[in-house]
Amino acid sequence: MSAERLVVVGGDAAGMSAAAQARRLRGASDLAITVLEQGPEVSYSACGIPYWVGDVVGDRDRLIARTPREFAAQDVDVRTATRAEEVDLDAGTVRTSTGETFGYDRLVIATGGRPMRPPVPGLDAQGVHGVHRLADGADIRAAVAAGARRAVVLGGGYIGLEMADVLHARGLAVTIVLADPLPMTQLDADMGERICKAIGDLGIDVQPDQPVREVEADADGVVRAVRTDAGSYECDLVVLGLGMGPEVALARAAGLRIGETGAVEVDRTQRSRSHPEVYAAGDCSQTYHRLTGEAVHVALGTHATKQGRVAGSVIGGRAARFAGVLGTALTKVGGLEIGRTGLCASQAAAAGHDVRTETIEGTTRAGYYPGAEPMTVKLVSDRGSGQLLGGQIVGGPGAGKRIDVLATAIWAGLTAEEFAGSDLSYAPPFSPVHDPVAVAARVASRVEQG
Amino acid sequence: MSAERLVVVGGDAAGMSAAAQARRLRGASDLAITVLEQGPEVSYSACGIPYWVGDVVGDRDRLIARTPREFAAQDVDVRTATRAEEVDLDAGTVRTSTGETFGYDRLVIATGGRPMRPPVPGLDAQGVHGVHRLADGADIRAAVAAGARRAVVLGGGYIGLEMADVLHARGLAVTIVLADPLPMTQLDADMGERICKAIGDLGIDVQPDQPVREVEADADGVVRAVRTDAGSYECDLVVLGLGMGPEVALARAAGLRIGETGAVEVDRTQRSRSHPEVYAAGDCSQTYHRLTGEAVHVALGTHATKQGRVAGSVIGGRAARFAGVLGTALTKVGGLEIGRTGLCASQAAAAGHDVRTETIEGTTRAGYYPGAEPMTVKLVSDRGSGQLLGGQIVGGPGAGKRIDVLATAIWAGLTAEEFAGSDLSYAPPFSPVHDPVAVAARVASRVEQG
Repeated sequence: MSAERLVVVGGDAAGMSAAAQARRLRGASDLAITVLEQGPEVSYSACGIPYWVGDVVGDRDRLIARTPREFAAQDVDVRTATRAEEVDLDAGTVRTSTGETFGYDRLVIATGGRPMRPPVPGLDAQGVHGVHRLADGADIRAAVAAGARRAVVLGGGYIGLEMADVLHARGLAVTIVLADPLPMTQLDADMGERICKAIGDLGIDVQPDQPVREVEADADGVVRAVRTDAGSYECDLVVLGLGMGPEVALARAAGLRIGETGAVEVDRTQRSRSHPEVYAAGDCSQTYHRLTGEAVHVALGTHATKQGRVAGSVIGGRAARFAGVLGTALTKVGGLEIGRTGLCASQAAAAGHDVRTETIEGTTRAGYYPGAEPMTVKLVSDRGSGQLLGGQIVGGPGAGKRIDVLATAIWAGLTAEEFAGSDLSYAPPFSPVHDPVAVAARVASRVEQG
Repeated sequence: MSAERLVVVGGDAAGMSAAAQARRLRGASDLAITVLEQGPEVSYSACGIPYWVGDVVGDRDRLIARTPREFAAQDVDVRTATRAEEVDLDAGTVRTSTGETFGYDRLVIATGGRPMRPPVPGLDAQGVHGVHRLADGADIRAAVAAGARRAVVLGGGYIGLEMADVLHARGLAVTIVLADPLPMTQLDADMGERICKAIGDLGIDVQPDQPVREVEADADGVVRAVRTDAGSYECDLVVLGLGMGPEVALARAAGLRIGETGAVEVDRTQRSRSHPEVYAAGDCSQTYHRLTGEAVHVALGTHATKQGRVAGSVIGGRAARFAGVLGTALTKVGGLEIGRTGLCASQAAAAGHDVRTETIEGTTRAGYYPGAEPMTVKLVSDRGSGQLLGGQIVGGPGAGKRIDVLATAIWAGLTAEEFAGSDLSYAPPFSPVHDPVAVAARVASRVEQG
């Protein structure tokens, strides 16, 4: 009996996790695994690119978690520089840029994401960069090394703020151009205002409420300015920080069902809703919100690897399902840490909740302990049940990772009162007697009680 | 109608929380509140004393959270330097060292803890100090200022390790003498070994398995050595780091029921089981373990303030109950952070669980991000149900506070698999793609699945 054939399209977090997990569960004589990757590397950390650009991480190769050779040792045949050009779902084949055709019994689509691009002229100018592939990082580093002095970052989400921060730290004059009134629209406006102020205090220029109209280039096709209705911002470098959309060209052309978010529609085992022999995972796939059950698209390495593992488990014969996302995220800009999880107030209201919000000010350590920094915690809960729905944290070093405590409480379905009673750690170098996240819950639960 | 009379014995965390919460709920015309405090201060941070001794915190007054004057502004009559000598439960009176007698309708006993003392001769020598009152901190600081050069710390719990750390940092030669084979017996031995090695690497001498036999003093009654069966350790300073027991002399003499832990036995509203008009809270009171329901005594400011607030709420007419403890604790020694929560393996076995433990090695940040430090996570779970029972973390800066994530998961009753799916934050400056606490849960859940 010949082995079943698994083909994985895309060799980053989701694809390689699927391949590795399937291999763990089924040997090479039972399952042949081929990974087709268009780029030169597999398993690199896209999230690390800003820090490489910022010279915080000096060596590009440190961003590469595992090499094709390492996977080969597990009998996973990784083909880099091999782009999947077409999937024939009826025939069960993938045609590649190398002129080969790979037959499959099971297919994993893990084509990842692509930087969102505003619909404006000039984006093809030289000097406009996404933050996606390692090559993007190399290009931006080269631009800085070549003397770039002014950068415009389009968008104020995580990638946008991280890029603005590292380019500013490298000495460039940085302007963030926002279509929205505030950066970090995943947080409520009151928290976004704190972030906006902190960015300004760093010396980064923020231009809100200005959808970009055009990227202007000089006669050589090199970017020279970003134009909005309010002004024109000279620059020699433009970074796309508008987030990542799903890369579904291959899947769409093949006829796989695409969901309302524009990503491949899958069930909770990561299986395509239109073609049960096909799985999708990672940034190209649609997922669902843990609290609302609604379809969402969240491009993040943690979900990608988990979803890949779920697909690999199911292909490997073990029951598994992806348990949803809360939209937990964390970043820092200068010394300011920013975390969020669950629903913000507007999302909670849209989901039909009678929304209660509580915002408290605390410190990262006991107030008398050196290095204690201010931190703000905002909790979103349901007024009727007390159920915790979301949390947002903005504060100094040590503040941000506390978002995991809120994410866990929300994941578990705790009410504010149940969480307020929890036994969190206390020691002066680490927190006040009552951790700010617990204080926020106590205030929310006291309010519950009237 | 005259006001009901509330007397609170003890003006630290538990007592003042009870007073403040009762006052929030009932005005002065309805409830008269008197606090009797034997010492000169109320509401000081005992947990901060090691850092004051270590000159990490320079100003003693910063350890004082609120002054009697601040409480007076809330119509709480605080009597410092007023020791409660006797409680007459039949008469409903408290007689004090000032010669006064206070009648009460409701009484809160919040007499706190006292440093555990080994039953050996010589403990009254000059130069032997607990770490309890601010005066203890002042005495130790004075000893260091006067030229103390060698310190012996008895015990290797939190206070013992913190004191050893700060005295060593101030240039003293420090020996920790342990009755047990390892420090931090609240953690399993494999984790204790890591801690022991790290302490040794700092240059602190650890002498395990040696119950102290005698504290030796010179002709002037000044300590000169600590003697065990294995040796005699010269010193000019001895610190009691054996933990805190409940201070129940007053309660016991009055006839209040004392529990199996030696602390005042109370129900979940902090009400005495023998005298319903009396409440006890904080280090003098017995509490219960969230997971096992068993009576435990845990001296910690977080519990004390919560218990005081529960007592104050109930006295104030609002339903409240204390929700139990997990034994969460956190400390650091040098750059090593140590956290624990829930049951360690031996406790879980004693509680009747079929115990599963998993220990994983991870890093505090993405491996390629500067400052990434090793950290070890140990998870204890129930083999049959998968329920998480306990967690232990030992690692570099940033590792320790993650214990709160495990504490929350355990508090909520999650299984390892449920927690492994949770949406924890990821960004390279803060964690690897999968936080070590989540990786540990994934390994434990994978094992669950066979």
